[in-house]
Amino acid sequence: MKAYQIAKQDDLYKMNLNDIPDPVVGPSDVLVEMKAWSLNYRDLSMLRGGYYKNDKVKTDPPLIPLSDGAGEVVAVGNAVTRFKKGDRVAGIFFQTWIGGDLTNEQIGSALGGALDGVLAEKVALNENGLVKIPDNLSYEEGATLPCAAVTAWQALSLKPVKPGDVVLMLGTGGVSIFALQFAKAAGAETIITSSSDEKLEKAKELGVDHTINYKDTPDWEKEVLKITGGEGVDNVIEVGGPGTLEKSITSTKVSGRISLIGVLSGQPEQNPSPVMIMLKRLTLQGIYVGSRDMFEDMNKTIQEKGIKPVIGKTFDFKDAADAFDYMKSGSHFGKIVIS
Amino acid sequence: MKAYQIAKQDDLYKMNLNDIPDPVVGPSDVLVEMKAWSLNYRDLSMLRGGYYKNDKVKTDPPLIPLSDGAGEVVAVGNAVTRFKKGDRVAGIFFQTWIGGDLTNEQIGSALGGALDGVLAEKVALNENGLVKIPDNLSYEEGATLPCAAVTAWQALSLKPVKPGDVVLMLGTGGVSIFALQFAKAAGAETIITSSSDEKLEKAKELGVDHTINYKDTPDWEKEVLKITGGEGVDNVIEVGGPGTLEKSITSTKVSGRISLIGVLSGQPEQNPSPVMIMLKRLTLQGIYVGSRDMFEDMNKTIQEKGIKPVIGKTFDFKDAADAFDYMKSGSHFGKIVIS
Amino acid sequence: MKAYQIAKQDDLYKMNLNDIPDPVVGPSDVLVEMKAWSLNYRDLSMLRGGYYKNDKVKTDPPLIPLSDGAGEVVAVGNAVTRFKKGDRVAGIFFQTWIGGDLTNEQIGSALGGALDGVLAEKVALNENGLVKIPDNLSYEEGATLPCAAVTAWQALSLKPVKPGDVVLMLGTGGVSIFALQFAKAAGAETIITSSSDEKLEKAKELGVDHTINYKDTPDWEKEVLKITGGEGVDNVIEVGGPGTLEKSITSTKVSGRISLIGVLSGQPEQNPSPVMIMLKRLTLQGIYVGSRDMFEDMNKTIQEKGIKPVIGKTFDFKDAADAFDYMKSGSHFGKIVIS
Amino acid sequence: MKAYQIAKQDDLYKMNLNDIPDPVVGPSDVLVEMKAWSLNYRDLSMLRGGYYKNDKVKTDPPLIPLSDGAGEVVAVGNAVTRFKKGDRVAGIFFQTWIGGDLTNEQIGSALGGALDGVLAEKVALNENGLVKIPDNLSYEEGATLPCAAVTAWQALSLKPVKPGDVVLMLGTGGVSIFALQFAKAAGAETIITSSSDEKLEKAKELGVDHTINYKDTPDWEKEVLKITGGEGVDNVIEVGGPGTLEKSITSTKVSGRISLIGVLSGQPEQNPSPVMIMLKRLTLQGIYVGSRDMFEDMNKTIQEKGIKPVIGKTFDFKDAADAFDYMKSGSHFGKIVIS
Repeated sequence: MKAYQIAKQDDLYKMNLNDIPDPVVGPSDVLVEMKAWSLNYRDLSMLRGGYYKNDKVKTDPPLIPLSDGAGEVVAVGNAVTRFKKGDRVAGIFFQTWIGGDLTNEQIGSALGGALDGVLAEKVALNENGLVKIPDNLSYEEGATLPCAAVTAWQALSLKPVKPGDVVLMLGTGGVSIFALQFAKAAGAETIITSSSDEKLEKAKELGVDHTINYKDTPDWEKEVLKITGGEGVDNVIEVGGPGTLEKSITSTKVSGRISLIGVLSGQPEQNPSPVMIMLKRLTLQGIYVGSRDMFEDMNKTIQEKGIKPVIGKTFDFKDAADAFDYMKSGSHFGKIVIS
Repeated sequence: MKAYQIAKQDDLYKMNLNDIPDPVVGPSDVLVEMKAWSLNYRDLSMLRGGYYKNDKVKTDPPLIPLSDGAGEVVAVGNAVTRFKKGDRVAGIFFQTWIGGDLTNEQIGSALGGALDGVLAEKVALNENGLVKIPDNLSYEEGATLPCAAVTAWQALSLKPVKPGDVVLMLGTGGVSIFALQFAKAAGAETIITSSSDEKLEKAKELGVDHTINYKDTPDWEKEVLKITGGEGVDNVIEVGGPGTLEKSITSTKVSGRISLIGVLSGQPEQNPSPVMIMLKRLTLQGIYVGSRDMFEDMNKTIQEKGIKPVIGKTFDFKDAADAFDYMKSGSHFGKIVIS
Repeated sequence: MKAYQIAKQDDLYKMNLNDIPDPVVGPSDVLVEMKAWSLNYRDLSMLRGGYYKNDKVKTDPPLIPLSDGAGEVVAVGNAVTRFKKGDRVAGIFFQTWIGGDLTNEQIGSALGGALDGVLAEKVALNENGLVKIPDNLSYEEGATLPCAAVTAWQALSLKPVKPGDVVLMLGTGGVSIFALQFAKAAGAETIITSSSDEKLEKAKELGVDHTINYKDTPDWEKEVLKITGGEGVDNVIEVGGPGTLEKSITSTKVSGRISLIGVLSGQPEQNPSPVMIMLKRLTLQGIYVGSRDMFEDMNKTIQEKGIKPVIGKTFDFKDAADAFDYMKSGSHFGKIVIS
Repeated sequence: MKAYQIAKQDDLYKMNLNDIPDPVVGPSDVLVEMKAWSLNYRDLSMLRGGYYKNDKVKTDPPLIPLSDGAGEVVAVGNAVTRFKKGDRVAGIFFQTWIGGDLTNEQIGSALGGALDGVLAEKVALNENGLVKIPDNLSYEEGATLPCAAVTAWQALSLKPVKPGDVVLMLGTGGVSIFALQFAKAAGAETIITSSSDEKLEKAKELGVDHTINYKDTPDWEKEVLKITGGEGVDNVIEVGGPGTLEKSITSTKVSGRISLIGVLSGQPEQNPSPVMIMLKRLTLQGIYVGSRDMFEDMNKTIQEKGIKPVIGKTFDFKDAADAFDYMKSGSHFGKIVIS
């Protein structure tokens, strides 16, 4: 079968489309014929060799990239009970994080990082490492879920967002847009920032309640306080970017929560001062994708509320390298998909 | 000032409208000119003398009835900081339950039970025992909140309801209708039961997703399982009634939750068998109104989502006794209000 | 290899020691040479055919009995990363419940019930269905953990027991004695009941703070209230028995918790009245063993605090049937072990 | 009566012992004859004028300093139900934070900051702003609890510490020593750091399991990882100090928790980098003293486990200024008390 493999891991990254043997399907495994994939900044970091590595996470070439993809089950091992041929599925980001809290051991099971990813024609995974995608989604839409959507879901579910809450999304990247959709589905009030009025306009079409152009309003935290009557928001989807964290702390209400996600954007080079974290009794919560339980909870919501992932641009499997180049440009709104 | 006081506490209950001295306003107190009140089954139980009593809860005559009412602040003690003249307020059910878990001590601070209630022209309460009512509600609507609405809110917030969840409301009483409105606001799927197609029709107007007439479908738990694909619901608003609890247990999914509220309906004379509670790992959670924190969280939701309490019938202050008689008939949909 | 299989499933139950093929070891599987086993009432119910069955749980002959056992890893599949040859391990009760909340699907993965159990010379399990036993335990001691100990751990950890809490254990069965040991390790005050002064004496040796002989003190709930200054306890380990649940409700403090476990004792034939559950805002929590995360958390405690499971009597593998007959007599204190 | 009042608020701070009128006792108030007081760094910051101020928190002269003190109830208003003459009590830090999450409004109710403190012969507080001190403590010991001990309690109870957990205390200040005592009472393993072998020796007498002299071992985070088998600790009591936060992050296990308290030590001038917070899914939790519910839970533990606060040095009421000067020297182990 054909699979992409990382060949050169730096800013001039290179991946090759190689012919490699079909994956072996063990008795507990599920063989998936991949139909669609999607990209995250983390995947770009892998290519560039700039992703965090330790004894659990090795990302050296040849590595098949990508955590996100969806496909059809074409074979199952004889001990498999969770899936059958024809099921529409996606792999989970951490193959062994089923429920509860993430452990050190489970960090070593990430697709497209610690383990080979899914940018291949066929993928074999243990049946515990897959979920069914929602019935209301195409393969392209389902392929956008494993990393960005589950990240947004975890950020809003550790302390569940509820009606009456106000949620602030920084920027209009994949995680922020999913967070907007999930926060609205949960009845919360929403604020989103961007430097582009065009992107803010698209966010309004998705139902956001308040928009702030942070280029026009560099002190956007004051605008957030004004919107919330001086109280601040309940949860910030803090995806990083220079200088945002201090402003996020100011934007959050007493006993509120900041969901720290920026690593996916590759721009976490800022430092919060801890004084206000203490004096406002804030929770600064590191978010690292999520468990299978979270993925399945999320899928129920997507299906029941008819939520549609926003796809910005779609590339052919043979043009996968172009998709990465396009991501670098940063001009997209919505997920970049390979089909 | 004029105030109702219970004179005879049995099935032929009697309350008199007496002239009593105006309440004394201490330095931390707030004096409220009452504008509207609402009734709960618990208030009827107080009149009938059938309410649970212990060393903390004494309900003997002369007791001013009612936990629920709303009015305007007309005077504040000199140490008061939470309110000012002109504020639109309601008393909280347990005067000293601010946040966290209910304690034995706090049970002894219930209005219209352990303490005198609010069915009077003026009421003086410690400033900690009041909340502002939402801006979008009239006094009549605000008066419906302290007992039934806060009860529904607690039932849905101990394990917060979220999109993808399914919530089952038994009957169309005050708590169930508030629960329906809050569950919808939180993005959940909803099922409601009633013996009256007319009431189910009204529930549909409020947005309920599925209705079951339990007279036509006595095995309604099977219908609930069918609606939920055999899995069962996440939370049952179990307000009591003969024989419902076993069916509620069957209707609930593994690791799900039953919110046990029936005492307010005066019909808790049934016994669940614990086997299925264990084998389904259910949580059977006693719900007893709620804290001030819950009340204020709820008010934010009501205001932001524009939720309107459903009022069934309104009586004059001078006809308060008729309101209780009307409640006995059980034919109402929506809260009974005195104005 | 030799394995016991249920041959006749009624009160005159019968199991045979059969020669069956060695288990197949898939690439994700671990082959364990069993060294010791332990019994729970649930296993006796399986033999008697009296255990709850549904579409997920089939317990018909020939079924290899027992959920609990420990042994040494003698082979691992080539995809296994969690274990290596020589590791000392035990299977987990629900093979697929890793963390988070139990699901309907996971109920169908119980050893010695839905799936074949471990009363065999060799057992092959997916690597996700095993944990290492604590270093400070022998195989016999480790074999007592999967069902009773994990059950006690879940009961005390859903709302974590802490210093200042009072925990009430009903009876001196396996779950109760583990709960006593874990509650003491967590700094809680403990009360235990029994009809035998001899067993209460043994509980004192394990550090229990208060003992009640319920034969001498049939109104033991009053004694519990006296010990707790009228407040009641924070958590009851309610393992069933005629008429205990009403007394447990009386024994529990406002906003307290009853952990409902009785199914394991086979005597859940009682019904609580829900009134006091509501008026005391109690949580009645069904407990059904626990997840792998709970098992591993528990093992850390056992190892760090040097906790030793209490073994009542040990039988030879060839006399396994005698172990079941001994359990029927109910005279034991501590776990019944096969070695 | 006599009361200290801040006269000059800078590094050469000055407070005067003035004759001021006895406090007025309203109907809900309790008059306390103070017997003992204790100091926290925050009180020194108030004197120096270096404490954080906003519209809620004003700390200008003349302010009666100190949040911490204990005394005997000598009079109660006629509406008081929680206390009677002769009760031994302490004020709570935030007078209106009863339970649940801290709110912006409640921040404005801190003793010795937003409100006058307790360094006076008599203090009148609303009955909701006091708790009984544990029976096993003297007034001097009870006076040490409201700020430092409750802070430690909150840090260990938001995600309750349990047996098997490892807790790391930075330094041997008041909060750290209370945290050590509470963590041991809860069955946790404990590690403490100090630059003084003498202080580490005293910590060993209090039962700490591991000590690290950070002067001898500047890379103390590596020692923490070694002690925990490479996993890291479950909770860090992070009380600030130059450069500790990065090391604390390294010292914490995946999905672990850092309790951020440093503001009380006046040294929060460091910035954590958020990358590892995300990649380890850490919770960085701001801790700001605690609620009355937490104070009362803590008192039950102190009483039941016989915990004794460690008092370093005691000063006379007339020498209160010397107590502040002594605190500046930083050489103490245990709380500084005025009697």
